[in-house]
Amino acid sequence: MASLVLCGVSRSGRTAARLFMPYCRSDVPNAMTSYFSLKKAHLTGTLLSRTRCFSHTTCRKFMSHLAKANTQSGRSRKRMFIAAGAAILAGYVTGVMHFLKAEMTSVSVGDDEEEDDILQKCKGFMSMPVTDVKLLRQKKGETSTRMEMLIMETQAAFCRALEEVDGGKFKVDRWERDEGGGGVSCVLQDGEVFEKAGVNVSVVFGHLTEEAAKQMRSRGKTLKGVDGKLPFRAMGVSSVIHPKNPHIPTVHFNYRYFEIEEADGSKQWWFGGGTDLTPVYIDQADIVHFHSTLKEACDKHHPKFYAKFKKWCDEYFFIRHRGESRGIGGIFFDDLDSPSQKEVFAFVKSCAETVVPCYLPIVRKHLNDTFTSQEKDWQQVRRGRYVEFNLVYDRGVKFGLATPGSRIESILMSLPLTARWEYMHEPPKGSREAQILEVLRNPKQWVS
Amino acid sequence: MASLVLCGVSRSGRTAARLFMPYCRSDVPNAMTSYFSLKKAHLTGTLLSRTRCFSHTTCRKFMSHLAKANTQSGRSRKRMFIAAGAAILAGYVTGVMHFLKAEMTSVSVGDDEEEDDILQKCKGFMSMPVTDVKLLRQKKGETSTRMEMLIMETQAAFCRALEEVDGGKFKVDRWERDEGGGGVSCVLQDGEVFEKAGVNVSVVFGHLTEEAAKQMRSRGKTLKGVDGKLPFRAMGVSSVIHPKNPHIPTVHFNYRYFEIEEADGSKQWWFGGGTDLTPVYIDQADIVHFHSTLKEACDKHHPKFYAKFKKWCDEYFFIRHRGESRGIGGIFFDDLDSPSQKEVFAFVKSCAETVVPCYLPIVRKHLNDTFTSQEKDWQQVRRGRYVEFNLVYDRGVKFGLATPGSRIESILMSLPLTARWEYMHEPPKGSREAQILEVLRNPKQWVS
Repeated sequence: MASLVLCGVSRSGRTAARLFMPYCRSDVPNAMTSYFSLKKAHLTGTLLSRTRCFSHTTCRKFMSHLAKANTQSGRSRKRMFIAAGAAILAGYVTGVMHFLKAEMTSVSVGDDEEEDDILQKCKGFMSMPVTDVKLLRQKKGETSTRMEMLIMETQAAFCRALEEVDGGKFKVDRWERDEGGGGVSCVLQDGEVFEKAGVNVSVVFGHLTEEAAKQMRSRGKTLKGVDGKLPFRAMGVSSVIHPKNPHIPTVHFNYRYFEIEEADGSKQWWFGGGTDLTPVYIDQADIVHFHSTLKEACDKHHPKFYAKFKKWCDEYFFIRHRGESRGIGGIFFDDLDSPSQKEVFAFVKSCAETVVPCYLPIVRKHLNDTFTSQEKDWQQVRRGRYVEFNLVYDRGVKFGLATPGSRIESILMSLPLTARWEYMHEPPKGSREAQILEVLRNPKQWVS
Repeated sequence: MASLVLCGVSRSGRTAARLFMPYCRSDVPNAMTSYFSLKKAHLTGTLLSRTRCFSHTTCRKFMSHLAKANTQSGRSRKRMFIAAGAAILAGYVTGVMHFLKAEMTSVSVGDDEEEDDILQKCKGFMSMPVTDVKLLRQKKGETSTRMEMLIMETQAAFCRALEEVDGGKFKVDRWERDEGGGGVSCVLQDGEVFEKAGVNVSVVFGHLTEEAAKQMRSRGKTLKGVDGKLPFRAMGVSSVIHPKNPHIPTVHFNYRYFEIEEADGSKQWWFGGGTDLTPVYIDQADIVHFHSTLKEACDKHHPKFYAKFKKWCDEYFFIRHRGESRGIGGIFFDDLDSPSQKEVFAFVKSCAETVVPCYLPIVRKHLNDTFTSQEKDWQQVRRGRYVEFNLVYDRGVKFGLATPGSRIESILMSLPLTARWEYMHEPPKGSREAQILEVLRNPKQWVS
């Protein structure tokens, strides 16, 4: 469940820089700044992470935000579902963080008159966007606004689709980061279908010192700030879904965007992301459907994208000490900044829009599959491997955990509810368990 | 479940070196060499880990070893319990490793005549010592021999004590390392009392290049080898026990020894080790018993040992991202090389001899405690934290996993059979779950 990437180094220095360049999480914007915090010898900025989650006043703020936006549009009241209302101040998580349980409820914000697109879309979100709605409307055409709307939409579309098959409701936590921005974490735990489903959005912003920016300078350019400071903005949506039934695979996706603004107003920007599947048993039709859907999204934008990003995915989600992939792959890309912001955004949008069609048909197909306790055990052993990947290799998780003040619950939301480690577990030859191990040890081409 | 420590740097360079100096596992002697493998730019040695476990022929070898030792003593046959006999070649774990399931069985090796102390002791071990019995007898008075006997004895004593309360039997795997040495891994999984109990021994040896030795030179001395090579030997016993009943705590211990021989025959050596407890609920009497037993062992050797090593333990077993200790501590020490080899060995021996009296009374006390599903769930959540510590922080685990050819099953034997991650789990104020969290967040002095 990795997310925002702080990659933007000179072409010549890219490899070396990547060794130290964390792969941060969109759901842990703190992690984003942690790179700088940990490199504080080089930095003079005040990027130390501070997050705090919303008290009940925040929910009133959300309502008033929308009401204000509504008033500004001169529109009357309308019932809409948002993550607000029955807010409970649940307590401090860390010394610098408190959070809110936000139950879904209906809030009147405007009814009779036509509303603009952004406001209309907000109504369907799990919570208000992190950025003030007024600001989003002012900067409607900008990529950061389009991306924030996209990640909010993706979160909502995916959560709604999962709620529909599960029957349960996501718990929505909003949190704020002192230096700028915040996030919306949605979790459905111990549902009818899903053991643990987490869908996170984060949008963080602030200023980097030139020294910090130099560490992550992009495309060989020297970044020049105003008074030595460069504004940055980063955002992403990420999700991991662990179902109960071992015949329904785990899915993970993440789409993220990063930008830094120079003194002359020019922007360094890039996108990253991916969607990958982790089944417990091989179902050829499921996997072909999953990869075909991704390939179709990729092919609309570049004929080489699917092959390139499929390979990247196999390479990234690899549990080295086991000599096996975490799952059957999907796509993964990073540092994507050409041919144009518009085109890359369009590609990322296509990818984000595939998460429901990639996964939900597979969930529905296996919803009523029966399973044995042996199959459940094998799922738990595979969950153990998922934990191993996420805690040992995932750059975002590793970095988030190393960052003081990170929102640990969002970072570790990607872990399954339950997992198992059996000593010397090796499935019998020819078994279905051995079949998937064979695939995980030798990644296949699923679609051509 | 950390073990052998490759620490031995000049006093002046100690802090810096420690940053890179792995804390290796006695059950993964490969990890030991991995430090060098990873630093191969500096090294020219052939320390790349290679382990292979014993085929059934090895068991015959064990028997013949003992028979030989016996013949040499001119003693007749006698029945003894050793890890040999019904050996099954179970298959390859990695390309460089195969292993053996060695069932406990009785083997005749000598009966009527008096046997020497080493041979006598071997009879009670879970398997033959890693070092040839003949060699051990030849080098009877040396610290490495005394330590190898101690770790084999500790393994056997602890396994027998656990078998007695559980009713189950440990599975014994012997494995060999191509470059020299090997190990004995004992696991009891899904028993009556224990969910997963692992007790490992390893003894590895070989040669370091001067360049490698320079990286880990001890006490400011320049190490000089013969033809640029320095013989080294490292060994240890380590164990993690996860019981089923949430009222029986998890225990971990590890005792290890390292030596390097210079061209003039002088040796650089040091010991490390510790025992610590991870309860699910606070039972003051249990904890006081545990710490008192450790303190008593420490006090016999130095009045400051307990306080110093208790503090070190609290500092080491700390889950930084949670802001809490893994458990209620115990003792932990490293790089101990004074006042004399004899005295430090005596201290380590006292510590190793406390593992049974530290832990078994607690196991027996709670053997028949009833527990609720809520208590079991809390245990599973705490197991999740145990996994987090071991995969994220434990230097030995991290290093072992990063080393190609490591015996992964021995490294990850420390993980519980099952674990749980609940989103935003926070026990209610005043509950017994909150009580232990409070202790884990603010380590206490249990004995004065």
